Amino acid sequence: MSTTINRQIHLVSRPQGEATASNFKLVEAAVPELKDGQVLVRNHFLSLDPYMRGRMNESKSYAAAQPLDAVMIGGTAGEVVASKNPHFAVGDKVVGMAGWQEYQLVDADQRGVLQKVDTTHVPLSAYLGPVGMPGVTGWYGLTQIIAPKAGETVVVSAASGAVGSVVGQLAKARGCRAVGLAGGADKCAYVVDELGFDACIDYKEHKDLKSLSGALKAACPDGIDGYFENVGGMILDAVMLRSNAFSRMAFCGMISGYNGEPIPMLNPSLILVNRMKLEGFIVSEHMELWPQALKELGTAVATGKLKYRETIAQGIASAPEAFLGLLKGKNFGKQLVKLV
Amino acid sequence: MSTTINRQIHLVSRPQGEATASNFKLVEAAVPELKDGQVLVRNHFLSLDPYMRGRMNESKSYAAAQPLDAVMIGGTAGEVVASKNPHFAVGDKVVGMAGWQEYQLVDADQRGVLQKVDTTHVPLSAYLGPVGMPGVTGWYGLTQIIAPKAGETVVVSAASGAVGSVVGQLAKARGCRAVGLAGGADKCAYVVDELGFDACIDYKEHKDLKSLSGALKAACPDGIDGYFENVGGMILDAVMLRSNAFSRMAFCGMISGYNGEPIPMLNPSLILVNRMKLEGFIVSEHMELWPQALKELGTAVATGKLKYRETIAQGIASAPEAFLGLLKGKNFGKQLVKLV
Repeated sequence: MSTTINRQIHLVSRPQGEATASNFKLVEAAVPELKDGQVLVRNHFLSLDPYMRGRMNESKSYAAAQPLDAVMIGGTAGEVVASKNPHFAVGDKVVGMAGWQEYQLVDADQRGVLQKVDTTHVPLSAYLGPVGMPGVTGWYGLTQIIAPKAGETVVVSAASGAVGSVVGQLAKARGCRAVGLAGGADKCAYVVDELGFDACIDYKEHKDLKSLSGALKAACPDGIDGYFENVGGMILDAVMLRSNAFSRMAFCGMISGYNGEPIPMLNPSLILVNRMKLEGFIVSEHMELWPQALKELGTAVATGKLKYRETIAQGIASAPEAFLGLLKGKNFGKQLVKLV
Repeated sequence: MSTTINRQIHLVSRPQGEATASNFKLVEAAVPELKDGQVLVRNHFLSLDPYMRGRMNESKSYAAAQPLDAVMIGGTAGEVVASKNPHFAVGDKVVGMAGWQEYQLVDADQRGVLQKVDTTHVPLSAYLGPVGMPGVTGWYGLTQIIAPKAGETVVVSAASGAVGSVVGQLAKARGCRAVGLAGGADKCAYVVDELGFDACIDYKEHKDLKSLSGALKAACPDGIDGYFENVGGMILDAVMLRSNAFSRMAFCGMISGYNGEPIPMLNPSLILVNRMKLEGFIVSEHMELWPQALKELGTAVATGKLKYRETIAQGIASAPEAFLGLLKGKNFGKQLVKLV
C-alpha cells in the first residue's frame, strides 16, 4: 500500500493583535498504518468558526489554548476510507473533530470521537452548520437562556452567520418578532428575504451609538426582550439601551474583542434598572441537550423550514485565508473548507 | 382636639450631579381629621436607603421619579395613635411607606399599605432593616440568584450595610466562605469580628484595579462563585477578574454611578469566558417570597443569630444630611432617622 500524504495546517505562532496568515503553516505528514480499533477518515469538509480565534491566544479562556506546532482544532465531516473497527465501515459518513487536515486516523472506540450521520435528507456539510455545533449553539441560547414567549422581540447579531441565522428562524417559529444585525445590504436582504426575519439592520451604516440605537428603536417598536450576543462592543451597548424590563441576553461570542483590549460595556447599571439576565454559555458543556436540539434542527433542515447558506473555500491550503476572512465578516453564512 | 403639626421633608429640586441639602425642604402641614377607615400613625423611625437617590432623578429607572414638592418616599415604622379602622387599634406597632414625615394619615383598608408587626422579640427598628426591605433584598439575591452551595465563596460589597451584612451572614449559615468589601478599617473589623465573615477588604486601601484584584485573590483563594453587587465601578471589575466558571452575580445596587455618567464594565467578555450569570432584581417585584424570607430573617434576629448595626440620626430635620452621608458611606450599618 502506497503511503497516503496528509496535508495539515499547524498553528506556528500566536497573534500579536490581529491574526495573520504567518501564524499558520502547511505541513505534510504520512498517514500511519491502521491498528486494531482504528478508523481512517477522509475529511470532506472542515468547519471554520469564530471560537478558534480565542484558542489561538495564550490568555485565560474557557478552553485550553491551541498548542503551537500542532494541527489547528476544528470540526470536520467526511467518509470512512479504511476501518479496523467493527462499528465503522468504509463508506460511512461521519463527523468528528479532526482539525485542519485532510485525513484523520482515529481510535474510534473512544466515546463521541466520531459520529455516524445520515445524509439521506440532510447534506453532509449541514452537520457542521445548522445540524451541528453552530445550530445547537443557536438553539441552546434561544431556548434555554432567552426562552422567548410568542409576541416577544428577539434580536441577534451576526444574523446571516451559521449561528445567528438559526436563532432568528427558531425565534420566528416560536411566534416572535426576529430582528437581525448584519454587515452590508446584501447580508441584510438575505436575512429578511430568504431567512424570513422581520427586519435586519446593517450595522455598517451606523457609526455611533445614537444612530444604531435609533435604528434598533425603529426595528423594535416594542423594545427588545431577548438578545443573542455574537459580537459585543457598540452593538451590545445599543441593544442594552433598547432592552425591556426582564429581558434576557445569551452571550455566545464577542468577536469584536478577540484581537486585543477588552471592549467595555458602557452602562452596566441597565442590568439593574431593567432587571436583566445576562448569561454566557459554551454549547459543548450541555451535551445532554444535543439530541433534543439536533432532532428539531435536523427535521427543520430536512423539511426545508430551516434555511442556511455556506461560503466554501477550496482545498486545505485555503483554510488560513478563509479563517482570517471569517474574522472580518467576509463570509456569507457558514464558512467551510472543501477538501475533496 | 388641637391641631397636630406634621413636619415633612419635600424634594424641591433635582440634583445636578451630587445631591445636596438644597434639594430638600422642611415643610409643616396640619394633620387632617380622621375619616372612617383611616388610621393615624406616628412614625418612630424613618428608613434611609440608597435607592432613594435614583428616585430623585428625572431619568428612566424601574420606578417613577419622586415628584417635586411632595414628601420624599421611604419606609417607616411607628405606632397607631388614632384609628377609625376596625383592624387597627391605638398602640399597634406598624410598618408602612409614609415617607419622610412625622405622621401618616392612611386609608388602612388598602391592602399592604400598613402592616402590624410584633415587637416582642424583634425591635421595631429591625423591621426597617434585617427583617424588612433590606433584609429581604439580601435574602432574595443570595438565595434566588446566587443560590450558593456549601463550600462556595460569596463576595458582597457594602458588607457592613443593611443589605450586605445580611448577605454575608446568610451565606455563612449556608456553609459558604463569606468575603466582604467595606470602606475603612473599623467597618472591616466589624464585618469580620462581629458579623463573622471570613474576610473583609477595605476598598479604600486599593487605588487601582490591580491592587484590588490582588486583595480579592488573597481573600478568595478558590475564586469567587457568587457576588452580591451593591456598588458597581472598579469593585465590579475586580470581582469579575476573580470570578469562577459558572459564577453568579446578583445586581442589587450600583451606588457608585448614581451621581452622573454611567460607569462602564471593563471586560464584559468575561461573562462568556466564565459562563457567568448576571441578574438584576428589585425586591418589591417578588412579594410572593417575602413571607418565606421574613420568617427566616425574623427568627434569626430574634435568636441573635443575625446581627445588625444601626446609625441613628435624631429628628426629621436631620434626614437630608443623614441621607447625603449615607450616599458617601458615612453611615455604619442601617441608616435610620428617629422621630420620637
